[in-house]
Amino acid sequence: MNAPDLTRPPLTIRRISLDTGRENVAVISRRSRALRPEVFRGFSRVELRINSKVLLATLMITDDDAMIGPDEVGLSEPAFRRFNEPVGSAVSVTPARSPASLDAVRAKIQGHTLSAAEITAIVDDLAHFRYSDMEIAAFLISAARFTTTDELLALVGAMASVGTKLTWDTPIVVDKHCIGGIPGNRTTMIVVPIVAAHGLMIPKTSSRAITSPAGTADTMELLARVDLDVEQMKQVVHACGGCLVWGGHVNLSPADDILISVERPLSLDTPEQMVASIMSKKLAAGSTRLLIDFPVGPSAKVTNANEAMRLRKLFEFVGDHFGISVEVVTTDGRQPIGRGIGPVLEARDVMAVLGNEPGAPADLREKSLRLAAHLLEYDPKLRGGTGYARAKELLDSGAALKKMQQIIDAQGPSPCPAELGSYAADVLAAADGVVNGIDCLRINRLARSAGAPVAKGAGIDLFKKIGDRVEKGEPLYRVYASDRSEFDLALAAAQAESGFAINHHTPADVDLVS
Amino acid sequence: MNAPDLTRPPLTIRRISLDTGRENVAVISRRSRALRPEVFRGFSRVELRINSKVLLATLMITDDDAMIGPDEVGLSEPAFRRFNEPVGSAVSVTPARSPASLDAVRAKIQGHTLSAAEITAIVDDLAHFRYSDMEIAAFLISAARFTTTDELLALVGAMASVGTKLTWDTPIVVDKHCIGGIPGNRTTMIVVPIVAAHGLMIPKTSSRAITSPAGTADTMELLARVDLDVEQMKQVVHACGGCLVWGGHVNLSPADDILISVERPLSLDTPEQMVASIMSKKLAAGSTRLLIDFPVGPSAKVTNANEAMRLRKLFEFVGDHFGISVEVVTTDGRQPIGRGIGPVLEARDVMAVLGNEPGAPADLREKSLRLAAHLLEYDPKLRGGTGYARAKELLDSGAALKKMQQIIDAQGPSPCPAELGSYAADVLAAADGVVNGIDCLRINRLARSAGAPVAKGAGIDLFKKIGDRVEKGEPLYRVYASDRSEFDLALAAAQAESGFAINHHTPADVDLVS
Repeated sequence: MNAPDLTRPPLTIRRISLDTGRENVAVISRRSRALRPEVFRGFSRVELRINSKVLLATLMITDDDAMIGPDEVGLSEPAFRRFNEPVGSAVSVTPARSPASLDAVRAKIQGHTLSAAEITAIVDDLAHFRYSDMEIAAFLISAARFTTTDELLALVGAMASVGTKLTWDTPIVVDKHCIGGIPGNRTTMIVVPIVAAHGLMIPKTSSRAITSPAGTADTMELLARVDLDVEQMKQVVHACGGCLVWGGHVNLSPADDILISVERPLSLDTPEQMVASIMSKKLAAGSTRLLIDFPVGPSAKVTNANEAMRLRKLFEFVGDHFGISVEVVTTDGRQPIGRGIGPVLEARDVMAVLGNEPGAPADLREKSLRLAAHLLEYDPKLRGGTGYARAKELLDSGAALKKMQQIIDAQGPSPCPAELGSYAADVLAAADGVVNGIDCLRINRLARSAGAPVAKGAGIDLFKKIGDRVEKGEPLYRVYASDRSEFDLALAAAQAESGFAINHHTPADVDLVS
Repeated sequence: MNAPDLTRPPLTIRRISLDTGRENVAVISRRSRALRPEVFRGFSRVELRINSKVLLATLMITDDDAMIGPDEVGLSEPAFRRFNEPVGSAVSVTPARSPASLDAVRAKIQGHTLSAAEITAIVDDLAHFRYSDMEIAAFLISAARFTTTDELLALVGAMASVGTKLTWDTPIVVDKHCIGGIPGNRTTMIVVPIVAAHGLMIPKTSSRAITSPAGTADTMELLARVDLDVEQMKQVVHACGGCLVWGGHVNLSPADDILISVERPLSLDTPEQMVASIMSKKLAAGSTRLLIDFPVGPSAKVTNANEAMRLRKLFEFVGDHFGISVEVVTTDGRQPIGRGIGPVLEARDVMAVLGNEPGAPADLREKSLRLAAHLLEYDPKLRGGTGYARAKELLDSGAALKKMQQIIDAQGPSPCPAELGSYAADVLAAADGVVNGIDCLRINRLARSAGAPVAKGAGIDLFKKIGDRVEKGEPLYRVYASDRSEFDLALAAAQAESGFAINHHTPADVDLVS
């Protein structure tokens, strides 16, 4: 009998100052008046119910009356926020049944393929925090073994439907996405103002850094507010033709945020999960034209043209099904793009390119122009092949910078000071030679250990790139940090292994398909 | 850089009255002196270290200084117990790397087979609480898709090695196990005294009920203490030739306890996982002869002879590899064995059989004699085919009862009163006819909803079994409960659906292979 035991007295809600992240946690007393904790032996989850409102939570038990008394139930911060009922409310607490959609997960574990209805039910339960961590992992791993194309389409559709769905009053809504992995590479903040200045709509939402030293949202935050809600975002887009906001408050594809929070610690990274994640967000965002940047290089996410091809086909297939025109470009992912790595340093590079400053990083400028050119060609009024020239015109004329300033004004003032870390030291070349390779993973890790992205002014400023000649003792890059112990650690690590390969070979070309 | 940040000041340990079950939980302040919680964005796990002693824990963050101050780290009860360092100790707390063995889990997810060394490393990390819930789920589900026989052998060996390993000074150490699912069926408490009375060694450890209304440990606890540690268990076995203790304090195959705690909520139940669980415990227990009872029936765990055959072969294969002689018997699993379901009622049936009381359930007596007969035949001194007669002789003569009393005296007095629940009512037949089937799952669920096994005196007492003729209004069984609301719920549920199929057909025979 798992039916709720309605004959027992309800408990009153208390709020516990415990940030338990994604997981809802409920605490009851071992001497609970309403429930004997022994009843929960074999149940790790409980169901809280007020009328038809239900919250599933992981159960913890206390002997400390000061924390939770016998007639109370404590809710951790996220559980309290999600249940959204006042402290002191009466709530029934019963052992929780598993969400019904877990039967489909069990079938998937056994090798069955799932129907669209089953996948929709799973995604709905995921997005409403009804799955425990281990249940989320069960779904992801069963899907990681194989996902049919029908399952993938159902997953993208369900994930896009479960959160906010944006619609725009124009048929051409352009968007760009980079699959990531390359330090620096802050092209979005240059591409968006160019495209918006031309007159195409580009309502861009970006993530914060998860495993990298800076995300577009972390960097843009130094120039403007980025935590806009849906209505505020729409106002900016209607006023400017584009925006550069953090996706976190817009709630596009909330199931994706939950899946990512489990994929990350487990290092799960299948093509199908990447496609579901990106395409569900783009579909929810109302994008109709999508350019995807695949950096290819030995330390990039995609290491060869074959892999890039398979992933491209998958994106195109899903895009076609949902009426999103997808274009994939493979780009040079052998080394960082731009010079700065870390929010303040990357914002400096972006503004240097937009401001046409003499020292602006040429590679960041060039890559941004190329990506913008692809997007501009979506404009039917533009003559075929003139996208690049038009992008260059908008950048060189200062129109893009002006558009950026308009977007910044519309989004509101930045809440963060854009100061470089006060600790700085150079890392020097150990020998004469030519820079033959730069390990993107290593550079990312060094910048993170220096404190980026939490410390906005921390990071790495590169003085040398692939092909550059260096002499022994010449600086390769400068490490910045805001905290002494982080500085010491990052510098020691950089000196032990700089991430630069220096020798006398000519650097190899990267194998690109486009 | 994931290296421990040793330049930061350590935190002092505080104990938090939170029972978080299997999972270690650590709580730090959002204003922690030693660590900025933002550093942990992207890390859900931390590593606590005092010299070479390390504990991995899931991180939660508080804003409440009364709970945890800026220079403290709070440990939940199980984490505090496992780390085993005094309150106030200085401990370094750093973001945790995943256990190295997770790389093997990731390989398994991708379809690789694992080496014995990889499986040993996984089991070692599991048993030492280094895996989070989602990591345990990742391992189980990747293994649920396929497990090679080599992997299974490595798993059993590693699981048996990681906890207590018992050895006995005799080559013939017999054991029995039932794969479960059948209400009542408390044969172990009859088989052990018969076998020990004969003179074979049978050091039996049993589990408490997980999903059933009573386990052997829950029932035996009404007659004697069962929470013995290894040394106490050995003393009982040396004195009596057998014991009936709870396995929980003996710590055989601790990794299995952890795997089960995740298998259960996910309802994962593969033959390989069942075999690994049972055989690792038997190997650690030092058993050399093992009889396994497979009840077969429409609502049993094994529903047909083919399934039973496949499972039998797997048990035999693993047994042969590790030098355990395994014998599997399939038994009638169409209905409960005995009359009582719930600890007090089952203990009553057991003692009625051992005491040769006139009303003792014949099916429980008969099944126990047959199982004991199989075990007695392991005695080389017994003439082939005389096991059953010898078992009957030991039971009928009162030798088995005397042995049971000796075991009870050796284990010590029971901590629980053996009283039936004070609420009782009969469930009546809705029509005339013949009992054609009894749904074991339904009966288990009804007994649990009445409060068993937590309420020892709750449960169901059957008056009718398959083949019995009943008249409309005649009692089928009596429901007992100790708590009014549990009583009301269980009775209403039983009246809505009794679990009895009554009609005019002749009951079908079960398809048994032995």
